[in-house]
Amino acid sequence: MNATLITVGDEILIGQIVDTNSAWMGQELNLRGIKIQEIRSISDEHDDIIRAIQASFETSDLILMTGGLGPTKDDITKKAISDYYGVGMTFHTPTFERIERFFEKLGRSTTPAHREQCYMPTNATLLQNKMGSAPGMWFDEGGKVLISMPGVPYEMKSIMTDEVFPRLKERFVTKPIAHRTILTIGEGESRIAAKIEAFEEQLPDGMKLAYLPGLGMVRLRLSATGEDKVVLHELLDEKVKEIHAIIPHLIFGYETQTIEEVVGELLKQNGKTLGTAESCTGGYLAHRITSIAGSSAYFSGSIVAYANQIKESHLNVSADTLKTHGAVSKETVVEMVQGALTALGTDIAISVSGIAGPGGGTPDKPVGTIWLAVGDQQRINTYKLNLGKDRLKNIQYTANVAFNMIRKFILTENSSKTVAEISGDLTE
Amino acid sequence: MNATLITVGDEILIGQIVDTNSAWMGQELNLRGIKIQEIRSISDEHDDIIRAIQASFETSDLILMTGGLGPTKDDITKKAISDYYGVGMTFHTPTFERIERFFEKLGRSTTPAHREQCYMPTNATLLQNKMGSAPGMWFDEGGKVLISMPGVPYEMKSIMTDEVFPRLKERFVTKPIAHRTILTIGEGESRIAAKIEAFEEQLPDGMKLAYLPGLGMVRLRLSATGEDKVVLHELLDEKVKEIHAIIPHLIFGYETQTIEEVVGELLKQNGKTLGTAESCTGGYLAHRITSIAGSSAYFSGSIVAYANQIKESHLNVSADTLKTHGAVSKETVVEMVQGALTALGTDIAISVSGIAGPGGGTPDKPVGTIWLAVGDQQRINTYKLNLGKDRLKNIQYTANVAFNMIRKFILTENSSKTVAEISGDLTE
Repeated sequence: MNATLITVGDEILIGQIVDTNSAWMGQELNLRGIKIQEIRSISDEHDDIIRAIQASFETSDLILMTGGLGPTKDDITKKAISDYYGVGMTFHTPTFERIERFFEKLGRSTTPAHREQCYMPTNATLLQNKMGSAPGMWFDEGGKVLISMPGVPYEMKSIMTDEVFPRLKERFVTKPIAHRTILTIGEGESRIAAKIEAFEEQLPDGMKLAYLPGLGMVRLRLSATGEDKVVLHELLDEKVKEIHAIIPHLIFGYETQTIEEVVGELLKQNGKTLGTAESCTGGYLAHRITSIAGSSAYFSGSIVAYANQIKESHLNVSADTLKTHGAVSKETVVEMVQGALTALGTDIAISVSGIAGPGGGTPDKPVGTIWLAVGDQQRINTYKLNLGKDRLKNIQYTANVAFNMIRKFILTENSSKTVAEISGDLTE
Repeated sequence: MNATLITVGDEILIGQIVDTNSAWMGQELNLRGIKIQEIRSISDEHDDIIRAIQASFETSDLILMTGGLGPTKDDITKKAISDYYGVGMTFHTPTFERIERFFEKLGRSTTPAHREQCYMPTNATLLQNKMGSAPGMWFDEGGKVLISMPGVPYEMKSIMTDEVFPRLKERFVTKPIAHRTILTIGEGESRIAAKIEAFEEQLPDGMKLAYLPGLGMVRLRLSATGEDKVVLHELLDEKVKEIHAIIPHLIFGYETQTIEEVVGELLKQNGKTLGTAESCTGGYLAHRITSIAGSSAYFSGSIVAYANQIKESHLNVSADTLKTHGAVSKETVVEMVQGALTALGTDIAISVSGIAGPGGGTPDKPVGTIWLAVGDQQRINTYKLNLGKDRLKNIQYTANVAFNMIRKFILTENSSKTVAEISGDLTE
């Protein structure tokens, strides 16, 4: 079962935007047993679109096309598709009424371009777009399926999830494939590979292990194909247990969990609240936490103390500490945690202060020097990172380490392990 | 003069990595007057590679291929190319000697795989790779050029810069092409299209306008081809001025600027400092601002007041206001701005309070109801948004609106426009 992804639009060809849609679609389709034969990016020229459809159907039974469905003049995907199938266009009243209602709610009227958007090839089955005005389209002719969707990532993802995946499952019978993803933090790819080498060598036929590295994290994905779905799942569950037995301290979650979700769950389970005191991460920790629906149950807020003056006034860091040890120091992040516990009135607080870069380093404290502390009224753990010069990467890496520190801090409270042991697991 | 980019390797097809090489190559080739006909990502299968070369040479005179030149087993690009041309492979001694010297310096010896890497199709002209062991290759047969390079981004970029661009300039005479990108905020794609319809219809031959929509923003890209580069740039500059004359209030910047960069520049120019008081955006405004290197010059910090208690204790919002009007109200965001100006000691503050979703709405204040305020000691502007149910989209959309409010707030100070006029420009 092969699919070709076609992205329509000059903005990718001239390198103005990077094609992230195809990566997401590739991942999701692979998980469902559909192999991506090819990814093609073409211009929004009528003949190029038709040529790409023809060529792709020579090697694939399924085409997923994104882009070129907006109301403006450079969007001609629909016309090309109707010409490819040799059909006319028909006005779709329900879609126009939906767009009208949407603009009515905003107290505004539609434009002629919005009417234009509602003409569809007559052989199209419409796919509902909850996130925008242009619906997706599904064509099924001569045993081959063509799907056309808007290129806006959240619109495409919404249509794929709600409409495309359920229909594909019904339309195509694929060989059972199953996956398990094990989420690790604290060791790099090669070190993990060395630890689970023996396990990997004994994987049965039809089972594969992939390493998917991220910032300070590595996802391990086990994939298995076979005849019987139930057997596959049992086999995978067993293998996950085996990996867990080898590297229990590196595993923070499974499947699509994020580390901030895991931390949120732990806080809820333990009835604890969290606050953050952020200098170099500049509110990014708070943003990651509050990206989770329901986080107000355990997250109270943050003091983003970019200026030293705010570290003093809101977090009670002493002027003396700032002068003697500097803003980027163990002493400062410890006082930031103590100050945040009082200022935000939370059970647990985490603090970060560092030099995110690319400038601002000194021989003593080069760019990438970042101090973190996590604590409550009883105990405080600190950690120092030596990262690179890439500002955004440093911020994101630091956030992952910070969330793991909170996770370990809460877990230690519930076990007999000492703090030192726990801190030792964190690596750069 | 058309080119096709071909990326070889399963890691892109299964979505494990995003193809950023093609975006870079697209940009650089476009600047040199070479139009990208298509970008294709294919698997590292012998027959797929040959088929892609054959098909691409039907529409392009130039193929740039990356990936599949490493020493491991799944790398078979070289073999496929030699079979495409029907030539044999020959051992390239200078390359092997270079690899040997490289490993000698590291105190290590070469492996048989390194010898393998030095066999090249007999008709290849080698392109020096200063950054790695696998050289690039240049083939020129039947009036068409095929270039093959390693997929490692810095190796590819080094070979392109040192070897490919100079050769292409010599080999192909290209027609100049130039672009301008105009960044707008405050109106949707169709409304902008309606406003500049007459302008668009009068574009000269060889000039195209594309609409690239984002969250509350639309980028307008003008592209022009012609005979004379200087004339092209003059023509584009003139057209940019014409667009500016039609929709001056919607344009916040040009080319690759972000709205937070524009706000940062305005703050610096006016010698003003900024602070944020965030409820539903949860630190995201602060994160966007502090993602810019050097933002500490104008950004002091943020109070992320997720809990009402923190709105009271750190932002001095009165308990009475919260009780009477609720946390999501004009009155609350106004008091948040006033509180933030004092608490953070900045010249300007912005505040946000809303229901980001997906849950938490009431009939009175449905999910997506978001209040914003921006102000200084003299005046405060407020704005209300009615957005959808997608939490992350709401947060990102709100941030874009917030940055535009700050921008307009600063610009008003310097003009005779009234606040009411300015606020009226902001739309969803």
